Amino acid sequence: MQEDQPVPAQPLPTVTAFDWVPDFARGLVRDIKVRWAMEELGLRYGVEILPAFGERSADYLARQPFDQVPAFSDGPLDLFESGAILLYLAQKHPGLLPADEGAAWKARCWLFAAYASVEPFITRLIIYDLFHADKAWAKEAREPAVALVRQKLKRVADALGDAEWLAGIFSVADIAMVTTLENLRGTALVAEQPGLVRYMQRAKDRPAFQRALDAQLADFTGSPPEGWDN
Amino acid sequence: MQEDQPVPAQPLPTVTAFDWVPDFARGLVRDIKVRWAMEELGLRYGVEILPAFGERSADYLARQPFDQVPAFSDGPLDLFESGAILLYLAQKHPGLLPADEGAAWKARCWLFAAYASVEPFITRLIIYDLFHADKAWAKEAREPAVALVRQKLKRVADALGDAEWLAGIFSVADIAMVTTLENLRGTALVAEQPGLVRYMQRAKDRPAFQRALDAQLADFTGSPPEGWDN
Repeated sequence: MQEDQPVPAQPLPTVTAFDWVPDFARGLVRDIKVRWAMEELGLRYGVEILPAFGERSADYLARQPFDQVPAFSDGPLDLFESGAILLYLAQKHPGLLPADEGAAWKARCWLFAAYASVEPFITRLIIYDLFHADKAWAKEAREPAVALVRQKLKRVADALGDAEWLAGIFSVADIAMVTTLENLRGTALVAEQPGLVRYMQRAKDRPAFQRALDAQLADFTGSPPEGWDN
Repeated sequence: MQEDQPVPAQPLPTVTAFDWVPDFARGLVRDIKVRWAMEELGLRYGVEILPAFGERSADYLARQPFDQVPAFSDGPLDLFESGAILLYLAQKHPGLLPADEGAAWKARCWLFAAYASVEPFITRLIIYDLFHADKAWAKEAREPAVALVRQKLKRVADALGDAEWLAGIFSVADIAMVTTLENLRGTALVAEQPGLVRYMQRAKDRPAFQRALDAQLADFTGSPPEGWDN
């Protein structure tokens, strides 16, 4: 439930997002993780749109030390890192962590796993494909990188098995994992694991995901930098 | 306070570790993060030593889906992912998260940042240096990878500024960040940020870090695989 106005009596939780990104990043920018969680939780929230290029406000680095999105605020609390924001939302509002303590910790383990044990290997591959595809060295570098991604995808698929979600109920772990795996959309690697294909489809069929995706895409009202050829 | 015996009435929290790793990984294997936290908290703990090579027990994958260390247990709870284990320990025992709610969330944000915004770029570089140093493509791939690591190190150094620790008091965020940056020990990159050099030295001067390091090193009682030339 994205809502930019009118200004409410209590400030809404607010997430930052960019006004423009290239096609290859649309639907992948990390504010989508936070939007998805808030849509699942039925929260009203605000969006602070930042220029993707040029100067950002002087205090933004203080809120987001890596000068990226998302930053997040909820009343007096300021957070950065989508993983921490997912954890915060799931601990504050019921619905995105299992009630059982052991299962809730399993969800937190998988939340970290998406960022620490899966994403780094995907990032490495995507950097080659998006920014160095024209270079001969990238073709050679790609081969061992693909092997590692395959290994990690198999680990996740094996751990998921026939389960619907990583920790019993749909949780922030699934939001983190599915949005991480989505970075491979330009490759055929996820398709090699039919269990993961079904898992991602289940997740993306959720109305809250679709609302979050639509909201991110609708907020790209800015223009590319001069000379950009998409 | 590593303690393998006698068997106590209550089972001790237990972390898994390898019986042998190559020199380049000694002091870096991720059980050191968990050991360091438990040493800071003054907890007695057990260590379950796993063979680094050959077959691991059939149920280990169920506890650690990526077949790595550490896995962790505390009574009925089983956890994997060092970041989740650090979070668990810091939330269960006082000492490694600030008491103030805002500062505690800042620590959680930096805990995620170590894994999600810093480590992936370091991992990429280290993979080149450790496993592909003999390949011509790796020399070319290294250049843009170094540039990204430099950028991330500057972000962390700028955010830390003159502060002693990332979130006020020494916290799990510092354990995660310092052990992440330590992966650059074979490079001169951290040395380019004097603030980070001092930060890492402050952290590593803590007696709990030294105990954790000594304990990890002492547990490498196994042998390399046949034919290994260190």
